[in-house]
Amino acid sequence: MDSKPSIWVEFTTLAVECKAVNIGQGFPDTPMPKFVSDLLTEVSEHPERTDWHQYTRGFGHTRLVNVLANLYSRFLKNPVNPQTDVLVTVGAYLALYYSFLGWLDHGDEVIVMEPAYDSYVPQIKLAGGVPVPVVLSLAPNPISSADYKLDISAIESKITPKTKMLILNNPHNPTGKLFSREELLALAELVKKHDLIVIADEVYEWHIYPGHEMIRFASLPGMYERTITIGSAGKAFSATGWKLGWALGPAQLLAPLKTIHQNCVFTCSTPTQEALARAFEMDLAIIEEGRFSESHLLTGLASELLPKRDLLAKGLREAGLTPIIPEAGYFMIADFSDIDWPGKNQQRSETDDPLDFDFVRWLCRERKLATIPPSAFYSGENKAGNDHFVRLCFFKSDETLLSAIEILKQLK
Amino acid sequence: MDSKPSIWVEFTTLAVECKAVNIGQGFPDTPMPKFVSDLLTEVSEHPERTDWHQYTRGFGHTRLVNVLANLYSRFLKNPVNPQTDVLVTVGAYLALYYSFLGWLDHGDEVIVMEPAYDSYVPQIKLAGGVPVPVVLSLAPNPISSADYKLDISAIESKITPKTKMLILNNPHNPTGKLFSREELLALAELVKKHDLIVIADEVYEWHIYPGHEMIRFASLPGMYERTITIGSAGKAFSATGWKLGWALGPAQLLAPLKTIHQNCVFTCSTPTQEALARAFEMDLAIIEEGRFSESHLLTGLASELLPKRDLLAKGLREAGLTPIIPEAGYFMIADFSDIDWPGKNQQRSETDDPLDFDFVRWLCRERKLATIPPSAFYSGENKAGNDHFVRLCFFKSDETLLSAIEILKQLK
Ligand SMILES: CSCCC(=O)C(=O)O
Ligand SMILES: CSCCC(=O)C(=O)O
Repeated sequence: MDSKPSIWVEFTTLAVECKAVNIGQGFPDTPMPKFVSDLLTEVSEHPERTDWHQYTRGFGHTRLVNVLANLYSRFLKNPVNPQTDVLVTVGAYLALYYSFLGWLDHGDEVIVMEPAYDSYVPQIKLAGGVPVPVVLSLAPNPISSADYKLDISAIESKITPKTKMLILNNPHNPTGKLFSREELLALAELVKKHDLIVIADEVYEWHIYPGHEMIRFASLPGMYERTITIGSAGKAFSATGWKLGWALGPAQLLAPLKTIHQNCVFTCSTPTQEALARAFEMDLAIIEEGRFSESHLLTGLASELLPKRDLLAKGLREAGLTPIIPEAGYFMIADFSDIDWPGKNQQRSETDDPLDFDFVRWLCRERKLATIPPSAFYSGENKAGNDHFVRLCFFKSDETLLSAIEILKQLK
Repeated sequence: MDSKPSIWVEFTTLAVECKAVNIGQGFPDTPMPKFVSDLLTEVSEHPERTDWHQYTRGFGHTRLVNVLANLYSRFLKNPVNPQTDVLVTVGAYLALYYSFLGWLDHGDEVIVMEPAYDSYVPQIKLAGGVPVPVVLSLAPNPISSADYKLDISAIESKITPKTKMLILNNPHNPTGKLFSREELLALAELVKKHDLIVIADEVYEWHIYPGHEMIRFASLPGMYERTITIGSAGKAFSATGWKLGWALGPAQLLAPLKTIHQNCVFTCSTPTQEALARAFEMDLAIIEEGRFSESHLLTGLASELLPKRDLLAKGLREAGLTPIIPEAGYFMIADFSDIDWPGKNQQRSETDDPLDFDFVRWLCRERKLATIPPSAFYSGENKAGNDHFVRLCFFKSDETLLSAIEILKQLK
């Protein structure tokens, strides 16, 4: 496995060192919801509650798996058994790794749509699998994340007898693409035809902008049986540091994940599970009362984020970058080809890092603005032609966003 | 990997189902230290503190690695670099798994002293390694955990060119054995001679009874370079559900663990890391003032536990079981050969579970007392001759212990 620091290690460390305005790594710099942190206070005020501070049920705190099963039974239009169909994990990261390690035999192939979240490839390799990248092609003059197109025939052409799994990241990081019903139904066809397991990494399911619909893969006809749905409480409740996620799916698909979990981790943090269980219970009550639409579940994340998205997009345009507006999530891709910077017309060699890495480093060191280079989400030769973008995170205070925009405008 | 439920899943579930008095799994049913839970309250009262609720430094929250490095520099008599020599993990479990996965090539052998904590063997196998068990032989008529003897020549006889690693669990679970300086020096010799890596699982380092000395393996001459020391905040602060541990050692030994961590987990819970960092800082101040001896570090755990240990030992004797008194930790092994129970004189066949499994199930179902069968800590044929014991946990309220003793006395 590549032992280089990951982009998160490299660029977050650099951001801190440079005291840069940070719109790189995906975390809010606004307060997390107070009703959730208050729930943790209620837990921490009771050190005598063994059931809140000592080991809890290994596969997930009972109160948490109950509410998750309840919530996802609605979302997936399928009864989710809390005892067997939910596994609480240390963030979505570990749910993903368990899925690969649990299901891949040596040499098994996994279809990965690029750009792909940067942990997928090393995790698949560590599990003994072979990642098979298929690029989401970008339409000319893209303006929306919908311009990243799924090419089903390109995927089908990569399927071999060794293909065991497909990983679908929806909403998609880093592009913000939300897969359409047509795209997902076509994928479901393919999955059935080739008898694949789907890992549905849907951690940004709570951040869907108006006019768009989140379709969870496992809710499609016949797909519950084939899908491991991966979710994240850190994303749901804007508390990324709480590091709790889950893998959810039929008992038989979760079984090998549980075997790994019981021996390698055993159980997740009890106090945060208790607090998060209650937070979900409160939100479930809201849904049941019909007060929010599903796409505004939880703290009304999309309405909070929409003006931020639009603020950043406007600032980018004014600064001479070309944003691709996301349909979901809290990241935005922008083209920096028109920006003048020292690396712009430099001769480059094969062994250089991709252009966006140099741009992002320059922007952080010289202009004190931290972003993320999206070519890190492509493998090998797919990086070429995809290194003139930056990824920006707009789940930040307006103050942070305005400072970032100010810096960007000075690039002109 | 064996997909059977682990003993923790089986026997904790059974304990809950039977509403049994639980002196099985290792967790306190007494309150965790209030000063520590209060520190978490301080953190949860500040939802606006991004640095306490969002992603923190991946390899460990800066404040936490700083204090751990400081503390262990003293313990290990070696400067521990907080930036490079500490990796914060999700409990000791994951630190162990990273160590195996990071260092073992396919077929590499690991010396494991049996009885061995039950996650070692499946973890080693999952990482592609081969566990090589060596039994700690038990002297006749044992009375103390010191009667479990390390036989260095037995270990040496198992060393082959493929032996890469030795795992030392000290204080030892389930026996409570504390390895003596002589034993450890002999091990250090062997380790040097055969150029091995040592995984020192020292999670019970804080629970040392009077008259005994905790010698951390990495503090022995020349051993820091060869040792990954594994520790646990859940054990240190009697909050097992907080699930934070660490791997600590020279940068070069930690490097492959960090590569796995950055791709498979990325970072641990921020709010609990912040709270635990402060708890350790408070304890470090106590040590620096010389108010406690090292063996009574933290909340004076050993003085709290000593009367509990002695209470349980007395009760066991009165009930007709023969306890082996631990020098450290919070578990006790006891021989139940003299107890009359339905399985006592039954004919047994090869395919039966070991005797202690049946005894423990019977005791839980019929007498409502939950314990742990120590044969789970032996592999294959080593189980034979080691299945007439139970393991009991005495980090329980006096009320729990007295109820347990009451039940045990009724076995007579
Ligand atoms: C590993 S931190 C990265 C958080 C995140 O999911 C992102 O920024 O894409
Ligand atoms: C996996 S829970 C077990 C806790 C423990 O370390 C023990 O009881 O031995």
